[in-house]
Amino acid sequence: MKWRDRARIGVMGPSACPGETLALARRVGQLIAQAGGIVVCGGGRGVMEAAARGAQEAGGLTIGILPGDDASEANPYVDLPVVTGLGNARNAINVLTSQAIIAIGGASGTLSEIALALKCGRPVVGLKTWTLTPPENQEPPSIHYASTPEEAVAVALKLAHFSHQVS
Amino acid sequence: MKWRDRARIGVMGPSACPGETLALARRVGQLIAQAGGIVVCGGGRGVMEAAARGAQEAGGLTIGILPGDDASEANPYVDLPVVTGLGNARNAINVLTSQAIIAIGGASGTLSEIALALKCGRPVVGLKTWTLTPPENQEPPSIHYASTPEEAVAVALKLAHFSHQVS
Amino acid sequence: MKWRDRARIGVMGPSACPGETLALARRVGQLIAQAGGIVVCGGGRGVMEAAARGAQEAGGLTIGILPGDDASEANPYVDLPVVTGLGNARNAINVLTSQAIIAIGGASGTLSEIALALKCGRPVVGLKTWTLTPPENQEPPSIHYASTPEEAVAVALKLAHFSHQVS
Amino acid sequence: MKWRDRARIGVMGPSACPGETLALARRVGQLIAQAGGIVVCGGGRGVMEAAARGAQEAGGLTIGILPGDDASEANPYVDLPVVTGLGNARNAINVLTSQAIIAIGGASGTLSEIALALKCGRPVVGLKTWTLTPPENQEPPSIHYASTPEEAVAVALKLAHFSHQVS
Repeated sequence: MKWRDRARIGVMGPSACPGETLALARRVGQLIAQAGGIVVCGGGRGVMEAAARGAQEAGGLTIGILPGDDASEANPYVDLPVVTGLGNARNAINVLTSQAIIAIGGASGTLSEIALALKCGRPVVGLKTWTLTPPENQEPPSIHYASTPEEAVAVALKLAHFSHQVS
Repeated sequence: MKWRDRARIGVMGPSACPGETLALARRVGQLIAQAGGIVVCGGGRGVMEAAARGAQEAGGLTIGILPGDDASEANPYVDLPVVTGLGNARNAINVLTSQAIIAIGGASGTLSEIALALKCGRPVVGLKTWTLTPPENQEPPSIHYASTPEEAVAVALKLAHFSHQVS
Repeated sequence: MKWRDRARIGVMGPSACPGETLALARRVGQLIAQAGGIVVCGGGRGVMEAAARGAQEAGGLTIGILPGDDASEANPYVDLPVVTGLGNARNAINVLTSQAIIAIGGASGTLSEIALALKCGRPVVGLKTWTLTPPENQEPPSIHYASTPEEAVAVALKLAHFSHQVS
Repeated sequence: MKWRDRARIGVMGPSACPGETLALARRVGQLIAQAGGIVVCGGGRGVMEAAARGAQEAGGLTIGILPGDDASEANPYVDLPVVTGLGNARNAINVLTSQAIIAIGGASGTLSEIALALKCGRPVVGLKTWTLTPPENQEPPSIHYASTPEEAVAVALKLAHFSHQVS
């Protein structure tokens, strides 16, 4: 399969988190790679590193979109560092570059990526992440909550494919 | 008072919303200006326009940080358009430029600004906005919910001052 | 005159430069303010500080669009710090926010602002700055070289007005 | 060789240019790929497309860092679209992501990339591109002018390696 035709799935999560969360992220990365997808992440530690590690171990390709201005800041499992120098503003690029995102854990950076994905129409799958309650009389956001890595990746790939078809 | 010493308070909210929400935003803008503060907003319609309008009507100064590349897109109540051309990535600038933000309503862009403010340490005051529930065993985010414009502005000014003192 | 109707003139130049260049920048800032314009700059030292100082001394308003994420990094003559956290990518905002730019001196950041202004159609006035020679058979870029601060500001205001009228 | 260890060489140039310039860019892309490097470009037409095409034809990998918010805007030879939505501000990312850049032709966007590369310490190789003359008493910028694609790629790879070693 051509690189361009592979699904680009963003895996978003905190740079510091419990080992249990890291295990979920690593498994998510592995499953994306096994399905032929590319892992897009923020290039840092924690969930970002675990997802990239899982993907690389399964023979997949990983992109790390870094907030800083030095490629060497990327975690060791990033194949292709994209060096933005934008700080947290790079979260918008993480989201736009992904055809769907899987949000893991409860960090504020991750929350911003969920929000930006909702804003720009990228499908969002949540795994042990934020629950968002809008003000009264408004509809809840379209987040697809999954309870396992397997479910999260299956839904994300399906939604990425769908969004790819219609866009 | 010098311009530099005036509190810069971000008012974040949707470009389309009910009239009741617009009335809240306009009152928030008015109160910020009456207290000597500067309104920072995204420069667009809806809450952004109402807040800028309220501030301008009370003799205050307004900054609009625009997503597009044309200053003429700013709503008529923006005194100083900052033209970014960054799309939604400009939300990070809205937040960094503000010493505290008041989030009004339930849009996804507003949610991203709440999240980015939490991420970079800017105080967040919520007024009829999102309720955020983290995954289990994590502490809820530090959002100060207010029930009136008066309370929202009073808390935001106090927190902006505090953050100004300690930073 | 309304804030919105005042010409926003960008003054771009290095953070470190000879005293002679600083004197030019300070005079440029002074002249912009005397003509009712607003000085837009990068918020740092050197030419940015001198231009803001000149403008403030003449009673004008100054905007500093900062590369870092802390408003306190702005030079003391910035009235309104816009905090981007974008590093050098903020140069694009300096240019888009200005209705014309005056480039002073020979730094590479200044060169990027000249180039971005040419790219996005903002008029460029040069004062002791780069001379740019395109490859053979291409037309030279449209930079208006001035030999004094007075000439630079007069041309910039005229071009800003013109571009304002036609846009 | 691991993806991470491959040189990332930026090829910067206009979206519209003569066929002769496109031929240079295509050959540059081919040579980078043959040497095991990755082509980084802006993802658009003209020089960007020709360089990516040359690289892909030689079996190389190509990254396109897009100004818009839609991956489908990438030229057909981009393997990995990075979708920024930042407009011209994305030029800073093109440069930071590259370990050296080769600037081809005389567009203003290309000039901004030369300038940003000089600013952030990325080596610049020029091929039928701008000649830059600083104001009097200043040293000319460190641009390595090449007269053939072969020379340009050889110098860029050498400088990328060097900068990699010392950074």
